[in-house]
Amino acid sequence: MNSTIELLKSHRSIRKFTDQPIPRELLVELIQAGQAAATSSHVQAYSVIHVKDQANREMIAELSGGQSYVASCAAFLVFCADMKRPTEASERAGSHVVRGMTEQLLVASVDTALFAQNVAIAAESEGLGLCYIGGIRNNPQQISDLLHLPKHVYPVFGMCLGYPAHQPDIKPRLPVEAILKEDYYTDDQALVEAFDESIHAYYQSRKGGGNKDSNWSRNLRPLFDDKLRAHMREFLIERGFEMK
Amino acid sequence: MNSTIELLKSHRSIRKFTDQPIPRELLVELIQAGQAAATSSHVQAYSVIHVKDQANREMIAELSGGQSYVASCAAFLVFCADMKRPTEASERAGSHVVRGMTEQLLVASVDTALFAQNVAIAAESEGLGLCYIGGIRNNPQQISDLLHLPKHVYPVFGMCLGYPAHQPDIKPRLPVEAILKEDYYTDDQALVEAFDESIHAYYQSRKGGGNKDSNWSRNLRPLFDDKLRAHMREFLIERGFEMK
Repeated sequence: MNSTIELLKSHRSIRKFTDQPIPRELLVELIQAGQAAATSSHVQAYSVIHVKDQANREMIAELSGGQSYVASCAAFLVFCADMKRPTEASERAGSHVVRGMTEQLLVASVDTALFAQNVAIAAESEGLGLCYIGGIRNNPQQISDLLHLPKHVYPVFGMCLGYPAHQPDIKPRLPVEAILKEDYYTDDQALVEAFDESIHAYYQSRKGGGNKDSNWSRNLRPLFDDKLRAHMREFLIERGFEMK
Repeated sequence: MNSTIELLKSHRSIRKFTDQPIPRELLVELIQAGQAAATSSHVQAYSVIHVKDQANREMIAELSGGQSYVASCAAFLVFCADMKRPTEASERAGSHVVRGMTEQLLVASVDTALFAQNVAIAAESEGLGLCYIGGIRNNPQQISDLLHLPKHVYPVFGMCLGYPAHQPDIKPRLPVEAILKEDYYTDDQALVEAFDESIHAYYQSRKGGGNKDSNWSRNLRPLFDDKLRAHMREFLIERGFEMK
């Protein structure tokens, strides 16, 4: 295993950070590393808001479900899918732009994720820790207002960055045999059930994170029972991502 | 700049590959590195189909817009957003699952992209080259049929992997000042216009890729003029991603 793969495999979400700040030049380096990721047809359909204003960070921490590290980490970034820049550029070049296609929502969301994952890896390669904040989609309209996001831009997720002040266990993943399939999709229920048992054992034994009596399948229940973030459809349409 | 950031910044799409195969153990290692990426609420909403059947690869090459390297690369992968596995697991754990929420489409698509980007970086760290194949969304239903994808699974993009037989120039990116914004979204039209000039110069000077008289904004026109992949809405609904 080479050192880059070792780095990738040592990822864990960091939620406690030291006071050490991140120099501006390093942050710029991370974003540039992000930009080097593949992008669909070179469209680069993303922008990042570096939220420095402390009052706004505290608001976003609250709006994201009370995630205090949004306010206390060294740097908090909001990764936005940005179809404003490319569609307006294309219009200036004479295009009769059709907006709001479902394909455009996918392109912009995927572009943003590829970009962000490069930023994450660059950060970890410099000894930083991070966690993604999907919770910004709990109240995406209020957060869009706080950051003055224009139409055709939507916040996909946030990212807390800083020097780690804890070292949580690495969370186990599904067996690779469930994920990687040959030629055709095949059922993987037996592998999932075995994974549930190993996750249960992990929760019973792990240090620091609380020993809960659960497993992977049971943990997923709130994701699907509660119509999580049922506002997203209306929110995206309001932002100009009409999913036509 | 450390060696990982250097690796990230040296990315280019590779479309010509040597005949050297990728050992199965290495492919598994890359997928496991992918699995180490962050995943929303641990949902791991992805599966990968490693397409080995040569007839299917040739079909997919054709269905993706005549991209012959899909058939000729050492390994071709189809990255799928997979909501079947987690929703069924959650049901077995007693959940009354609500399917087809827009939020679920985003979670699965973003999870798949974070995962794939880790696979890409792991591959490049081992000297492999790759290109993403968004073209599989040209004919996603036929490709889903070929791969026996069940409902609640959709193919997001493909990836060609292999040892590089060419070394294209690195394609310039938008200036970081356009992408990285402080506290609030700000207009970046002037930066885009300057970028258009530098891209024009790049196209005039680059080796091997053809010297076209274009720039970034003009290149984007087919993306927005032609209602690219207008079938995606209906396709996703048919797959069980109803965007409710």
